[in-house]
Amino acid sequence: MLLQAASPMAIPVVVLDPDVNAPAKQASQPQVLPAFASSSKGPLQHLDGAFTEAEKIRQLADQVDVLTVEIEHVNVAALRQVAQECATKGGRSGNGIKVFPSPDIIGIIQDKYLQKAHLAQRGVPVAPFRPITAAETETETSAGADDADPLAALVPSVLAAGAEFGYPLMLKSRHLAYDGRGNYVLRSSEPPAVRAALEALIPTGSLSAPGAKPLGDRLYAEKFAPFVKEVAVMVVRGASGETRTYPAVETIHRDSVCHIVYAPLRPPVSPKNGIGRQQRGLNAVASKSVNVRAQEDAQRAIDALGEGAVGVFGVEMFLMEDGSLLLNEIAPRPHNSGHYTIEACNVSQYTTHLYAILSLPLPPIRLIPAATAMLNLLGASSDADADFLQPTGVVAKAIEIGAAVHLYGKAGCRKGRKMGHITVMGSSDHAVRSQIAQLAALLPGAYAEPDRDADLATTSPLQPFSSRHPLVSIVMGSDSDLPVMKPAAQILTKFGVPFELSIVSAHRTAMRMEEFAHGAEQRGVRVVIAGAGGAAHLPGMVASATTLPVVGVPVKASVLDGVDSLYSIVQMPRGIPCATVGINNSTNAALLAIRILSTYQPQLQTALSEYAHNLEDEVLAKVGKLEEIGWDAYEYKK
Amino acid sequence: MLLQAASPMAIPVVVLDPDVNAPAKQASQPQVLPAFASSSKGPLQHLDGAFTEAEKIRQLADQVDVLTVEIEHVNVAALRQVAQECATKGGRSGNGIKVFPSPDIIGIIQDKYLQKAHLAQRGVPVAPFRPITAAETETETSAGADDADPLAALVPSVLAAGAEFGYPLMLKSRHLAYDGRGNYVLRSSEPPAVRAALEALIPTGSLSAPGAKPLGDRLYAEKFAPFVKEVAVMVVRGASGETRTYPAVETIHRDSVCHIVYAPLRPPVSPKNGIGRQQRGLNAVASKSVNVRAQEDAQRAIDALGEGAVGVFGVEMFLMEDGSLLLNEIAPRPHNSGHYTIEACNVSQYTTHLYAILSLPLPPIRLIPAATAMLNLLGASSDADADFLQPTGVVAKAIEIGAAVHLYGKAGCRKGRKMGHITVMGSSDHAVRSQIAQLAALLPGAYAEPDRDADLATTSPLQPFSSRHPLVSIVMGSDSDLPVMKPAAQILTKFGVPFELSIVSAHRTAMRMEEFAHGAEQRGVRVVIAGAGGAAHLPGMVASATTLPVVGVPVKASVLDGVDSLYSIVQMPRGIPCATVGINNSTNAALLAIRILSTYQPQLQTALSEYAHNLEDEVLAKVGKLEEIGWDAYEYKK
Repeated sequence: MLLQAASPMAIPVVVLDPDVNAPAKQASQPQVLPAFASSSKGPLQHLDGAFTEAEKIRQLADQVDVLTVEIEHVNVAALRQVAQECATKGGRSGNGIKVFPSPDIIGIIQDKYLQKAHLAQRGVPVAPFRPITAAETETETSAGADDADPLAALVPSVLAAGAEFGYPLMLKSRHLAYDGRGNYVLRSSEPPAVRAALEALIPTGSLSAPGAKPLGDRLYAEKFAPFVKEVAVMVVRGASGETRTYPAVETIHRDSVCHIVYAPLRPPVSPKNGIGRQQRGLNAVASKSVNVRAQEDAQRAIDALGEGAVGVFGVEMFLMEDGSLLLNEIAPRPHNSGHYTIEACNVSQYTTHLYAILSLPLPPIRLIPAATAMLNLLGASSDADADFLQPTGVVAKAIEIGAAVHLYGKAGCRKGRKMGHITVMGSSDHAVRSQIAQLAALLPGAYAEPDRDADLATTSPLQPFSSRHPLVSIVMGSDSDLPVMKPAAQILTKFGVPFELSIVSAHRTAMRMEEFAHGAEQRGVRVVIAGAGGAAHLPGMVASATTLPVVGVPVKASVLDGVDSLYSIVQMPRGIPCATVGINNSTNAALLAIRILSTYQPQLQTALSEYAHNLEDEVLAKVGKLEEIGWDAYEYKK
Repeated sequence: MLLQAASPMAIPVVVLDPDVNAPAKQASQPQVLPAFASSSKGPLQHLDGAFTEAEKIRQLADQVDVLTVEIEHVNVAALRQVAQECATKGGRSGNGIKVFPSPDIIGIIQDKYLQKAHLAQRGVPVAPFRPITAAETETETSAGADDADPLAALVPSVLAAGAEFGYPLMLKSRHLAYDGRGNYVLRSSEPPAVRAALEALIPTGSLSAPGAKPLGDRLYAEKFAPFVKEVAVMVVRGASGETRTYPAVETIHRDSVCHIVYAPLRPPVSPKNGIGRQQRGLNAVASKSVNVRAQEDAQRAIDALGEGAVGVFGVEMFLMEDGSLLLNEIAPRPHNSGHYTIEACNVSQYTTHLYAILSLPLPPIRLIPAATAMLNLLGASSDADADFLQPTGVVAKAIEIGAAVHLYGKAGCRKGRKMGHITVMGSSDHAVRSQIAQLAALLPGAYAEPDRDADLATTSPLQPFSSRHPLVSIVMGSDSDLPVMKPAAQILTKFGVPFELSIVSAHRTAMRMEEFAHGAEQRGVRVVIAGAGGAAHLPGMVASATTLPVVGVPVKASVLDGVDSLYSIVQMPRGIPCATVGINNSTNAALLAIRILSTYQPQLQTALSEYAHNLEDEVLAKVGKLEEIGWDAYEYKK
């Protein structure tokens, strides 16, 4: 995908990969580039070799001006040596090469314990953690026992961590861990459980392998973080130290492997109704959105890596129930959680990675559609065709609905292997999540099981919402307003606009109202319809606590014919507008909300035009009837 | 670019091109594809050779399952023969290949006269045209004179065309004409003018060249079409005959070469104020938008080509002053006017071309951003670096502002050669056109001259608009409403929202009001603010003739304190909503319009939050002052 981003800008790239058929090698033929074909060094050529072979890294360096990595499991020592040797001479030009990100930073990130320690020291919030060390006395005194059971030396350290952090306890490998590999949830201090954990993380034989890390440098322990969502942010840092962040996203994992990515990130919602759920108390109301905080934390984490942090980085975080964020880990490269940027942002993570390592300026980054999501195509068998490419399979459906399809061209498929991905873009979270649910249902094997965030519209009046991801929020001051407000829900249902409906009283649930109004935009709501009677403060008070357009419906109370409600809603002070419709006219409130949404959803414009034509036809039918039976016989029916 | 679209889906493509360094060959290395490397036919390989060489076309066919063209100047006879030979056997699989679009259709399109005749016969609207034939009598009787002046044989036919169509008269080459080459504007019937035209279109020596077309098959004449805009639509037609159209776009040409493409297409506007300009009379009001008509005409033109029309087609049209459209010509391939689709549509013209020729289903097509534009990078010299790649050049600026940069990797630059293009996407026409103007100013040579559609915001009160491409339209029933409505213009100026302002009276200019309301959405307006006093019909009447959200400002008239205006605006019948704000409160109307726009423009949300904080700060400052000087000494200043 990096080469696919380089291709439109005619940036020549050569690849070192052990596989002669590597997907990256399929995506460019650098030897035909005219500027290089005639060079004294010969044409540019992809290289076959391991990322750990020093000599191959040197051959690669000899062809280029800038060297970068797309996998962190490289030979850092070799890379460091090449970087030093070629800093001012060597490389394609003979004037030296740059290595981004720096080998030192890759080295820190390779060791997840060092990574965490580095970040924690620099004030980045992480879950409490500590190293798992080998008990020296035991290893020295009872060598015979050690041979039989070397892992026993780690038990005291594990138990100490358990005593400090409690159970469940996360035990993690410091090295070569990804996609859940190298992570173990230890549920108790019982000896068999500890033993099983250590055996899972340190396979027999790995201790005597050549170049094996010492037993005491293998693992670390982390306090279990009962997160409510997993969050990721791509950060790009330029050669001159400036950074840009992509929107925060939610990542859904299956068997510890990224399954779905949703952008933008939404705060967690309750299964029944999200209103005023995710932020409690005045502090939360006043604080920044979780999206902004995630971006700020991610940027801080990358800045904490220091000067050599050039290129794009994936920052994975946990969102906790109290709204706080804990940094989980960093990938020093383009990342699966950023694949959505290829279609959905003005510049993709791959393009900005190229800009960064080529010392070009970094552009502003924007999400173009209102919402987007990415679905991984993870192999279920050894047959990618059977898994994905059947005529009724997920790829055919993706093409049919206009999603973007990526197939990586990998030679072999196997269970859990990332074979491709699909990106959908839409005008609402609801639209995007419905399409993802539809596609995921066609995935092979267990991947087809519905996600907890699957979102299919309901028009059941048993539910106070038509979607868990509403674009319109209907609120009213009292259940006595419901008869007046119901037509709004009916109109939105008719137009297929996802909405929620609830009771929020400005006077009796003031804090709930503030929470609702402050949180609505973050949750993806785009228009609020608020109905109230009498003093009718709700619409204006909601308008004062959000930047969303608020449509006010004056509800006719027992006296004054609704004029009191109308004046209360429409006569807002300068600075805080409330879009007021006629007394009791919630139909028009919903139609106004749809007009507002239609400004960027052409399909709603079409639906509104049809609605207007139907109104016209209804009147014309009455004209016909009147002409047919005459004005005297005509009876008006309410 | 076709290969760049094939790469993410791992669709193997081999290329026939005379240039060993052809950009297309740089974009893929098919021989490393594992499925093909082990084939008995050997690895897939790009081919070096002319599009006109039958043997090369045969070699290409031998490697593939489907054969397509990206240039119409191919050897149709050879292609037809290969298609026939390989219909059921041959090709990579041995089971035959498909050729899309069919050679017959390419043949028709190659001859622009045949193309036009084909379309005209099938009811597609084109400018009147006729062939330029050679006068037989003269060529037969005076062979000596002919040798000296063969072109004289064409003069009678040219004069007959001039007599029929008038002057200026378009004379066009039937073959190998593109980017303005082969077109000549003949301004009079004077013999020297006719002579110059014929000499320009039929170079000396071309008559005796091997395989030269007969003199009478060289040219055709066309009635000059005084168009107001050039329009293009990409149409994709699938193997089973279904079609999809991309949005209609406006193409701006410089020296007959495509310079800028804007999407979506907007109807022409007057230089001073576009309100109610482009559509006159009740019929126009009721008719479909020019965008829809252009898409329908383009689709009809492609359907008229018949069964072999599979793949993507560029359809170029003229938009005439009366709003009608004339088809100019068809390109049987991806087209420059569709390059914007790479980033700005859910699926690009290249991807849908692949879907079509691979007999896959065609997806729904949507424009993702509100507006987009493409700027061609046309060489001005032989040095592409000097033309585009300077540190302060157009490419650096494009990167800085976050536009998408395409550089084609062509080996040599020359004046007028297409070396790349830049695509910008934005939340409004104004934003996109401002960026294009900024980029175009950095182009080399004459390309830097400002375009007539350049759009830079003005806040001058001398202008009734802040932009020629407004998002908000402020209208009022009478100039007496202006003092009340001015704050709306001031707020929009403060927030940098492009707007226009005019007088539209529901009662005194009823037709203008209808035209305005019907045309507003097509012109790119997203919110209408309408102010009116007394009977105050304007906001509701505008609302009844558009699907845009209309914000009504009740203006206080001489009696009833504005309550009359308020009731008239807010108490709309069910079905037609009008978002009403407080009496005389045009400030809130503008803020409501901005809230509406902010639902899909995050930067406006940020600006609104800041505005709210400023309001808070102002009140808090007064709190401080009150505490400081006491309630008795505090004087309220209006």
